[in-house]
Amino acid sequence: MNQQRDIEAIVSQMTLEEKAGMCSGLDFWHLKGVERLGVPSVMVTDGPHGLRKQSQGADHLGLFNSVPATCFPSAAGMASSWNKELIYRVGEALGEECQAEDVAVLLGPGANIKRSPLCGRNFEYFSEDPFLSSELAASHIQGVQSQGVGTSLKHFAVNNQEHRRMTTDAIVDERTLREIYLASFEGAVKKGRPWTVMCSYNQVNGAFASENAKLLTDILKEEWGHEGFVVSDWGAVNERDDALAAGLELEMPASNGVGEGKVIEAVQSGKLSVEALDRAVTRLLRVIFMAVDQKKENATYDKDAHHALAREVAAESMVLLKNEGGALPLRKDAKLAVIGAFGQKPRYQGGGSSHIVPTRLDSPLEEMKKLSADPCRIAYAQGYHVDSDLTDEALLEEAVEAASAAETVVIVAGLPDRYESEGYDRTHLDLPDNQNKLIEAIAGVNDNVVVVLLNGSAVVMPWIDRVKAVLESYLGGQAAGGAIADLLFGVHNPSGKLAETFPLKLSDNPSYLNFPGEGDRVEYKEGLFVGYRYYDKKQMKTLFPFGHGLSYTSFAYSDLTVDRAEMKDTEKASVSVKVTNVGAVRGKEIVQLYVRDVASTVIRPEKELKGFAKVDLKPGESQTVTFELDKRAFAYYNVELKDWHVESGDFELIVASSSVKPELTAKITVLSTVKLKKRYTMNSTIGDLLQDPDTAGAINELLAEYRKSSGLFDPEQNDEHADMMAAMLQYMPLRAMLSFGGEALSEEKLKRLLAELNR
Amino acid sequence: MNQQRDIEAIVSQMTLEEKAGMCSGLDFWHLKGVERLGVPSVMVTDGPHGLRKQSQGADHLGLFNSVPATCFPSAAGMASSWNKELIYRVGEALGEECQAEDVAVLLGPGANIKRSPLCGRNFEYFSEDPFLSSELAASHIQGVQSQGVGTSLKHFAVNNQEHRRMTTDAIVDERTLREIYLASFEGAVKKGRPWTVMCSYNQVNGAFASENAKLLTDILKEEWGHEGFVVSDWGAVNERDDALAAGLELEMPASNGVGEGKVIEAVQSGKLSVEALDRAVTRLLRVIFMAVDQKKENATYDKDAHHALAREVAAESMVLLKNEGGALPLRKDAKLAVIGAFGQKPRYQGGGSSHIVPTRLDSPLEEMKKLSADPCRIAYAQGYHVDSDLTDEALLEEAVEAASAAETVVIVAGLPDRYESEGYDRTHLDLPDNQNKLIEAIAGVNDNVVVVLLNGSAVVMPWIDRVKAVLESYLGGQAAGGAIADLLFGVHNPSGKLAETFPLKLSDNPSYLNFPGEGDRVEYKEGLFVGYRYYDKKQMKTLFPFGHGLSYTSFAYSDLTVDRAEMKDTEKASVSVKVTNVGAVRGKEIVQLYVRDVASTVIRPEKELKGFAKVDLKPGESQTVTFELDKRAFAYYNVELKDWHVESGDFELIVASSSVKPELTAKITVLSTVKLKKRYTMNSTIGDLLQDPDTAGAINELLAEYRKSSGLFDPEQNDEHADMMAAMLQYMPLRAMLSFGGEALSEEKLKRLLAELNR
Repeated sequence: MNQQRDIEAIVSQMTLEEKAGMCSGLDFWHLKGVERLGVPSVMVTDGPHGLRKQSQGADHLGLFNSVPATCFPSAAGMASSWNKELIYRVGEALGEECQAEDVAVLLGPGANIKRSPLCGRNFEYFSEDPFLSSELAASHIQGVQSQGVGTSLKHFAVNNQEHRRMTTDAIVDERTLREIYLASFEGAVKKGRPWTVMCSYNQVNGAFASENAKLLTDILKEEWGHEGFVVSDWGAVNERDDALAAGLELEMPASNGVGEGKVIEAVQSGKLSVEALDRAVTRLLRVIFMAVDQKKENATYDKDAHHALAREVAAESMVLLKNEGGALPLRKDAKLAVIGAFGQKPRYQGGGSSHIVPTRLDSPLEEMKKLSADPCRIAYAQGYHVDSDLTDEALLEEAVEAASAAETVVIVAGLPDRYESEGYDRTHLDLPDNQNKLIEAIAGVNDNVVVVLLNGSAVVMPWIDRVKAVLESYLGGQAAGGAIADLLFGVHNPSGKLAETFPLKLSDNPSYLNFPGEGDRVEYKEGLFVGYRYYDKKQMKTLFPFGHGLSYTSFAYSDLTVDRAEMKDTEKASVSVKVTNVGAVRGKEIVQLYVRDVASTVIRPEKELKGFAKVDLKPGESQTVTFELDKRAFAYYNVELKDWHVESGDFELIVASSSVKPELTAKITVLSTVKLKKRYTMNSTIGDLLQDPDTAGAINELLAEYRKSSGLFDPEQNDEHADMMAAMLQYMPLRAMLSFGGEALSEEKLKRLLAELNR
Repeated sequence: MNQQRDIEAIVSQMTLEEKAGMCSGLDFWHLKGVERLGVPSVMVTDGPHGLRKQSQGADHLGLFNSVPATCFPSAAGMASSWNKELIYRVGEALGEECQAEDVAVLLGPGANIKRSPLCGRNFEYFSEDPFLSSELAASHIQGVQSQGVGTSLKHFAVNNQEHRRMTTDAIVDERTLREIYLASFEGAVKKGRPWTVMCSYNQVNGAFASENAKLLTDILKEEWGHEGFVVSDWGAVNERDDALAAGLELEMPASNGVGEGKVIEAVQSGKLSVEALDRAVTRLLRVIFMAVDQKKENATYDKDAHHALAREVAAESMVLLKNEGGALPLRKDAKLAVIGAFGQKPRYQGGGSSHIVPTRLDSPLEEMKKLSADPCRIAYAQGYHVDSDLTDEALLEEAVEAASAAETVVIVAGLPDRYESEGYDRTHLDLPDNQNKLIEAIAGVNDNVVVVLLNGSAVVMPWIDRVKAVLESYLGGQAAGGAIADLLFGVHNPSGKLAETFPLKLSDNPSYLNFPGEGDRVEYKEGLFVGYRYYDKKQMKTLFPFGHGLSYTSFAYSDLTVDRAEMKDTEKASVSVKVTNVGAVRGKEIVQLYVRDVASTVIRPEKELKGFAKVDLKPGESQTVTFELDKRAFAYYNVELKDWHVESGDFELIVASSSVKPELTAKITVLSTVKLKKRYTMNSTIGDLLQDPDTAGAINELLAEYRKSSGLFDPEQNDEHADMMAAMLQYMPLRAMLSFGGEALSEEKLKRLLAELNR
């Protein structure tokens, strides 16, 4: 930091108009400054996987032209690397580019949960799992911010669809909100400490995110300790004064004076306190000066180095979904046919605010030729048109011919831009019809078909059984072409694993019955059962499960140890496991640790991801990975307690190579240090009272008396209705004893007993 | 009616104590009378598929001994007949037995929806579909009441599990409540006009059913016009005075003075008005005198005729699930092995309050021997113990031996009593392990295995591919043995179809994630998607779908006609279809009519059952079936309107032989006569405003101006972001125009426009 700032002093010198003014943008991309007090106007710019700084003279929204920047893989791809260190390095590079372009805050990363694979913006998000998503978002944030550039963690919160995104109301129960949708932000805020957080467009349980005090103030700032400011998604402000009162410091873009006018009016009328406005401005100034004080003058960055990093990241982000009979890697002298328009000109990023102009662009075909022993042995056919779903018979024929002559065919397929974008959702999971037809036709003439997919979110693969290998490259950024070539030829070993489930069909998805809702209301009725939590519990087959990804080598798991058999929920457990590369080539393995509550009184997922690590191993090499588990790894959010809570009992620790492939398991007993208060009523059941050691004695006495007077519920009785009578007794509320033969018991007597039990 | 009753005069002569007294039972089975005013004490008795009148000197709850009565198939079976006329005849027979036993009201039928196949009491309920359930319940009610005996439609409402049934709170959204759970009662009340309705134990959305004024008064009495009284399920009363105020006239059983004491106190304190109490007593007296005035002195009934009816009904209730290669019917001279303890001593009814003492009991084995050309050609082996799930190797060996020597094996399997009962739910869908092992073993030595199942609700069949035929006999009542023999030998042709889905596995069931809830709270998060509504929409395979059932003959569907192409929702449409028996034997076909809303702005099931009919056809014979469809057949429950509503548009009419086997389809356009009021706000989207013909003009004008000033959203623009820009515009709320380039528009201007649009 260049100088000590007395922000309090600056605020005290500002007029009401200046303060209110600062709470809205200057224009589309700049915050307002106050020149007379030395507060500069700083710039923010879209991200998150590259810089989208509007060029001079571009259109109003800045969508259509921006200065060139390195296009890294989009989040869906990067997440598949499960590599926090690598994502940190991408963040660093992004930060460098921001410094070079004089950008104070890069808008991103996005930590929204992939509730449905249809969400048009899934390519910008990390995962269906909040733990994985929050860990990766935190690394991204730390990387960017290490360069003195801010981030804006977005879109807070529960923005899981593009359909009616500016008005829809997401109805989510408290536990689901906490355990899934907020958890993905919580870890990112606590660990990453983003300078800013961007609120989403939608409503959450009846209040716009932009004016949701529970989200913006109670949870984000007070519970999680966010110290920066909250910025609105562009145009997300409904009533500016209500938003400010709720904790939204910055409205973007400029509102042509409307926003500041309302703030001024609210302060003047007493609706909003000056102190609240001062607090907002203080938060704004704090971030502005963090940027100003860390500004590197005349910063530049190394385009080649960033491109190389983009290629490294892309290679680690791609997922080898299938590899039957070792079809991959390809021999460098193999006679190949590369088929598909995307093979020449790949799709490498998604549409919308994250769409950038890359510094350069690799072609998969050209990169493959560079790696091939003989580029002439690689034929190419276009196969399909990207801008149409209709089959071009001539292209198809040409492709079939090329395929017939090849040893192995690499079909480069994927979703066109028009299929996936910010702004609207997909309506199905299919590839364009002409691409599916092409794959089927090629599979009809060649047994060695490898499909490389370029897409931002899950697709279905009706042809999966007819092809040998599938490499999911996601939207791999400007160096995707090189990375694809590296993986196909084995220059690098695939090491990505899915951060989302690929379902067999759209209707399998848990949100399917309620996506995208009715009018402006979408109910998250699947609750906690998002992604693998659903497929697990429902015991459903998937096309490819969460956490799945193949390698050219194999790994063995051994020596799972837990440093204690039992722990209090105030303690931590350390879990170690040894991973060995038992194959012939170097490779990286993603080790996953899931926790399962063996028995629970509340509805819980079968298991939840609570740790992961990526290890790089030479053939024969081993490494021991250690995870630390604290209370949160075992807890659910208890809505009565308004806190995370562990139910005392046994938990299973599952070390796995995918969500459906447990490798080793261990057990730990966790003891809660929090005793839940119980309050018994006349509607408490005999069963519950008998189960509580504090009340069992008194109830057993009562029952003995009751049995004597009623002649009912004799435990010795062994007739055909015994099971029913036992169940009746268990489920019977105290009060019902009066109806069923409890002549000897009076209501007064039961009430006296209750009072005693509750003491 | 024997005499004109002046109920008003009787009530006016009653003391407060007498009136309050009448609102609770005299004992377990009798209402209180008022001798001095000529009001007798009448008796009520458990049902519903037979009379469970407590014997003299039996235990307190009357569970363990009752006078013999005809045991008809339980509702799960009867429902599979889809035969309203037959169920009416069963009702008549039950009514006769009540007259003979001096019973005024027979408690039943049960119209609860089968939300989960695990519900311990499913055998007493009809269906997962409210239309089918309500139609059959109405026939049952009409049949019983035609004999001057009352019924008690139960358990009202949303009692879909036994787990914690006396305390659990069923949380159901209003639409689901109306369209699924209440609809099953609504039709039964409106068409059947039961003398009494029994409230359930559980809570519904936070209030005990017994004190739920919305259910008992607003909906049941005021909306649906129920004129009789409401009786509590035995012990369901929580606070007697609150219950009476909510519309519960009769508390059962006797509460030892507690209930009447509270009513008296409430009247004296002014908490409850005398008028409310008088209304309750009037309803009680009305029903009591309906019974008294229709009492047939010295009535008797023909036990043989009722047994014969029980056999007829049982045969029509059984469902031929599978019949590969015409394995059934059996030749009368076939060399058979009948295997399974249930073959000798069948399970034929469920446990709990409906458990009766039959007048006689048929054995499947003995009845088969009677029909066989040579009883000596039928071997028998016990195969398994009913009271254990463990395999008895000696029994297994003996069974395998018998099977090896037979041409065809009939395995009689099913659920033991302890698996299914009132009072507790099942925890899985498996048959006992020893039975599954037996079936597998037998299938290993004989290719012609027929499985007859005796159970009250769906089971899974891991051996399904290894057996030739499966006859689901449900719990077929005392004549089930004869009916099984009739169907196996082709004396009768199977004609039942499933009134519930048999899933492939338990976790496939829609309620699985939320059944039976957490503590005393169960959320119906699957909403409308109960039974086939779920499997349809989720495109899931089932073991056997709703509406499925085979026959020994085949039917052809033709000549589907709808009497109009278009109708107003105040009109009715008539749908006819011709069904022809194109096979070689006489048979009955159940014709199903489903309605599908082709496009809807609200979430709706794929299709819903709105008509059914059963036709009896000789070989070559045809019959035309006609259905009438009114508004309700097309409507959903609109929670804003608080009424049923049809969205104008096209509907598909699907005539089907099962829920997954459409035979013929037609289209009809339905026009709503109700115009929903729209109220636009600053958060109304441009897309919505453009879609409404009343507002499109003004919005188009506004847009033209906006485009000019902002340079955005030009429809002519044809670049790579065009799709996104179109979507943005469509989903953009009016207010956001101010943020996105709407400098020329002021908030005031938009507000003025809004006021105009809302006029």
